Amino acid sequence: MKKLMLALLGITLAGSAAAQMKPEDAIKYRQSAYSTMSWNMHRIKASIEGAYNKDDVIKAANVIQSLANSGMGSLYLPGTDKGKGWVETRVKPEFFAPANKDKVGKVAADFNREANEMAKIAAGGDAAAVKAQFDKLGGTCKGCHDDFKIKD
Amino acid sequence: MKKLMLALLGITLAGSAAAQMKPEDAIKYRQSAYSTMSWNMHRIKASIEGAYNKDDVIKAANVIQSLANSGMGSLYLPGTDKGKGWVETRVKPEFFAPANKDKVGKVAADFNREANEMAKIAAGGDAAAVKAQFDKLGGTCKGCHDDFKIKD
Repeated sequence: MKKLMLALLGITLAGSAAAQMKPEDAIKYRQSAYSTMSWNMHRIKASIEGAYNKDDVIKAANVIQSLANSGMGSLYLPGTDKGKGWVETRVKPEFFAPANKDKVGKVAADFNREANEMAKIAAGGDAAAVKAQFDKLGGTCKGCHDDFKIKD
Repeated sequence: MKKLMLALLGITLAGSAAAQMKPEDAIKYRQSAYSTMSWNMHRIKASIEGAYNKDDVIKAANVIQSLANSGMGSLYLPGTDKGKGWVETRVKPEFFAPANKDKVGKVAADFNREANEMAKIAAGGDAAAVKAQFDKLGGTCKGCHDDFKIKD
């Protein structure tokens, strides 16, 4: 019972710590994390299209994996459906719609799974396998963007 | 000899891929990566100061570790000593001075070492050890900022 109480308290405190984050900071962190992923997707692409650099692909895949597993969902606080981080957020209101909860969960889980797989395959150093996984991973990025990101 | 030639070719091609990156993109990626690290340092701090959340600290430390090992040096291309990514870069010209090459290498190596250690200690889940390592890691951030980052 004491453990349960402490666990509940932990959740509450963690929740309030997240609640203390300013919406503009949460949006900035989101934009930063996605931009960091973009850098690293470009690095993998450069290796696939040019001279394959195993070490570079591993480093890039590890960054993407760590961000996929980081719990970025906590950055989608109430009040961050609109607002400015580095720039105005491009998240669509549909992302926050309760009716889309399962759909959002699915695109997040798809990305997470393929990012973890990318890191495994990168470690193997097989360029053809990396290319195939890169396409799969990119597909999960696009899957979310199509539904939940305002076009450039 | 063939291997050496290919290795040299690989370096050249990787170099030209990096050279193709626009300076404003490199600056934006740097700012994004540091902001992502800041988010994750704040998460660790919240755990140290509030209810300790082992899983959250592990996720945060893994992000910082992956970025420390990502080879961010490649984002300091010639022509990125000035310019705008999300905002105007705050790197000091001293960062690019050949006379400071060893000093820059040292602050980078310090950060790298402590970030790797942070991830190891986070996995152990000992809050006091995490706090001590967080202070060490934060010291390496400050060590670089003091010399090479323009103050806010």
